[in-house]
Amino acid sequence: MDLVDLIEKKKQGYSHSKEEIKYIVDSMMDGTALDAQLASWLMAVCFKGLNELETSDLTKILADSGDKVNFSELNEVVVDKHSTGGVGDKVTITLIPLLAAAGISVAKLADRGGRSAAGTIDKIEAIPNFNTDLSAIAIVNQVKNIKAVIASQDKKLAPADRKLYSLRGQTATTDNDSLIASSILSKKNACGGSNIVLDIKYGAGALMKTAEEAVHLSNLMVKIGNNINKKITAVVTSLEEPLGRAVGNSLEVIEAIEFLKGNLKDGELAYLTYYFGAITLIQLGLYNTVDDAVDYLKTLVDNGSAIKKFKEIIDAQNGDSSVIVNYDKFELPCYKVEFKSKKNGYVQNINAHEIAMAAKELGATRSDKSGLIDHSVGIYLNKKSGEFVNKEETLYTIYSNDEDKTRIAQTHCDNAFVIGDAKPSINNLVYKVIGIEEEDV
Amino acid sequence: MDLVDLIEKKKQGYSHSKEEIKYIVDSMMDGTALDAQLASWLMAVCFKGLNELETSDLTKILADSGDKVNFSELNEVVVDKHSTGGVGDKVTITLIPLLAAAGISVAKLADRGGRSAAGTIDKIEAIPNFNTDLSAIAIVNQVKNIKAVIASQDKKLAPADRKLYSLRGQTATTDNDSLIASSILSKKNACGGSNIVLDIKYGAGALMKTAEEAVHLSNLMVKIGNNINKKITAVVTSLEEPLGRAVGNSLEVIEAIEFLKGNLKDGELAYLTYYFGAITLIQLGLYNTVDDAVDYLKTLVDNGSAIKKFKEIIDAQNGDSSVIVNYDKFELPCYKVEFKSKKNGYVQNINAHEIAMAAKELGATRSDKSGLIDHSVGIYLNKKSGEFVNKEETLYTIYSNDEDKTRIAQTHCDNAFVIGDAKPSINNLVYKVIGIEEEDV
Repeated sequence: MDLVDLIEKKKQGYSHSKEEIKYIVDSMMDGTALDAQLASWLMAVCFKGLNELETSDLTKILADSGDKVNFSELNEVVVDKHSTGGVGDKVTITLIPLLAAAGISVAKLADRGGRSAAGTIDKIEAIPNFNTDLSAIAIVNQVKNIKAVIASQDKKLAPADRKLYSLRGQTATTDNDSLIASSILSKKNACGGSNIVLDIKYGAGALMKTAEEAVHLSNLMVKIGNNINKKITAVVTSLEEPLGRAVGNSLEVIEAIEFLKGNLKDGELAYLTYYFGAITLIQLGLYNTVDDAVDYLKTLVDNGSAIKKFKEIIDAQNGDSSVIVNYDKFELPCYKVEFKSKKNGYVQNINAHEIAMAAKELGATRSDKSGLIDHSVGIYLNKKSGEFVNKEETLYTIYSNDEDKTRIAQTHCDNAFVIGDAKPSINNLVYKVIGIEEEDV
Repeated sequence: MDLVDLIEKKKQGYSHSKEEIKYIVDSMMDGTALDAQLASWLMAVCFKGLNELETSDLTKILADSGDKVNFSELNEVVVDKHSTGGVGDKVTITLIPLLAAAGISVAKLADRGGRSAAGTIDKIEAIPNFNTDLSAIAIVNQVKNIKAVIASQDKKLAPADRKLYSLRGQTATTDNDSLIASSILSKKNACGGSNIVLDIKYGAGALMKTAEEAVHLSNLMVKIGNNINKKITAVVTSLEEPLGRAVGNSLEVIEAIEFLKGNLKDGELAYLTYYFGAITLIQLGLYNTVDDAVDYLKTLVDNGSAIKKFKEIIDAQNGDSSVIVNYDKFELPCYKVEFKSKKNGYVQNINAHEIAMAAKELGATRSDKSGLIDHSVGIYLNKKSGEFVNKEETLYTIYSNDEDKTRIAQTHCDNAFVIGDAKPSINNLVYKVIGIEEEDV
């Protein structure tokens, strides 16, 4: 086989055999393929696509490119959850301890964030000394012992995906559904969970801008899941504005702790955490309706099981679990500045992109992939859409370590908020569930 | 500017500004662009194209990326000729001395061949000690002294094109008209000739398979020529079978010498050499019709001026010009085997691709870009289409240094020849001339 011929083949719109896809991935891993060749192939894929079979083949081949976490000795289902991500999304941090408190084994293996958002690993590392760098064996043992783990994806898991993912970011080839699906599911396949719950987000604060795009990707992911023997449920959710009130690593963990303590009964974080928890219980056949499952999960928050489980996870991973009772144990920023509303009215909308820009400016996300992030900084949205704000009442709060950056972040936040007279209608967060029979949800 | 954004822009089908194209080329040359980024951009260009303005901008920017040959001190037009190439095409070797014999300054700066064909430089280097590695100053001086030069394109001329051309070959992005046009014309621009005659070939033995493709490219090249202040004439010619009878480096030079000596009055080589010579004289305003110009050029062959000029060129470039009178001075192959026709009939067709495969097998072209070539080997077509061959009469001759390779080459040659009862009609070689008023030709 010749790589130039394979690129030409895809350029002309033909389908690859499994052997051809394996040749491409193998050539990448043994270094015989030039990055330039992989990049031109990726761009050809963006124009001509991969069909379902090609996507399944690519997923398997990427997953098989390195080590795999093996939970078979546990003799039980292990749940994994993935979100395509969005501004303020900390549902993973609330969901993992909640599900583990319900007796379900959950292993969240995550990446760090990219250029525009922090990832779960970035966020959880805001807890002092929290160790996410666990070996495959340590991951399995922790799930065996306390039912839950939040670890960074080992470099040895799906290394071919790691390479391809990095190339995609550099070459404007990130937005093809088959490439997205094979990337996510190859990692999930290597990470060993049998049951996967996906949060596929769309809207101003997400990678995908429309519900249709998110549904298309979700359908593909569920189909690929069947082909690789994973039970996958995809929930298409809206992310028009930041999820919850906190944006920034420590702030988001604090908001998650507040939920797990039972102090946060309303809002998107509570709604989506219970919803995803319920979908997981239904997928496992433990409950039949979302309402019943949510009622059960609420008891685990109210009786302290959820926050107790989160403390167990932090302790197991060498983190300082005293942060749960004392938020000052988080790294503290130099400045905390409250910004007041300039008028009375209902918050109509908060532009997620502007808030993300503000968070990036403050240093809460990476300016480039190799850069460091500041866990202490961020934005707290004192008012969210649908809420009334009085003139001179606090609209948002900036946590910062730099006065100049505060000013720039302020401009972004001011741009983000739209305040008007009428009380806006708030859309449903959940658009569609794919991969579970409709009557169940 | 951000390269990823520019790739995304082209991917979405938008046009680049001149500044954006300059940023892409500059990033390539200063090493800040990754090959992968250039490759994905090239593939996006293959799908979305470059418009005429973008192509002109790219041409100028590539040409400006390095040194330029400057013929201004000569105070006269300098002609350059370029062929998109094809199996057995040695018209450059005959045309340069012929035009110089007519008193026209001609500077042929050429590349070596790629994977499927030898280039003019490969062929001319079959003459022992012929030096093609001339500095810009040496090139100008030789044109000043003897009116003609055949030199390899200096690495310092259009180095950005060299880099992009190499990437295109590796990434299946060779076939876009704008990329082809900007590559050829950036080199021509850097090489200093004011008047350019292009042979744009189509057919089984050429890069482009149809006349329509060749016309489209020709129209673009002539337009780009106007934009970069070069007088360009493009002649679309058919290459369904090898051009002339010789395929292989020494063999082709010998065929060219035979023409220049006046021993080869018919056939494609004579026809196209005179035709391109005439087009050049018309472009320069020296003649009005092809017939009159050809009549004049024939006198230069018949009176010995053309072969005398070729000897001058060889001497000026340190070659052994005794090859002109003694073909045994060329490197000789071990074997020369004549293959006989298995039946009586007219040659209907000779598949150029099969002959190219045979030549490659024998070692006449590179197996990869860095490889060496064997000047001594090749194929001589004793019969060409439209000619009658008797059973057991020699159909073709293989010159080889390896018995096994001879056998494989023989299979290709046998596959190439189609022999039938009816005398075939032979199509015109010249399909269309673009860039000179129709009434002139």
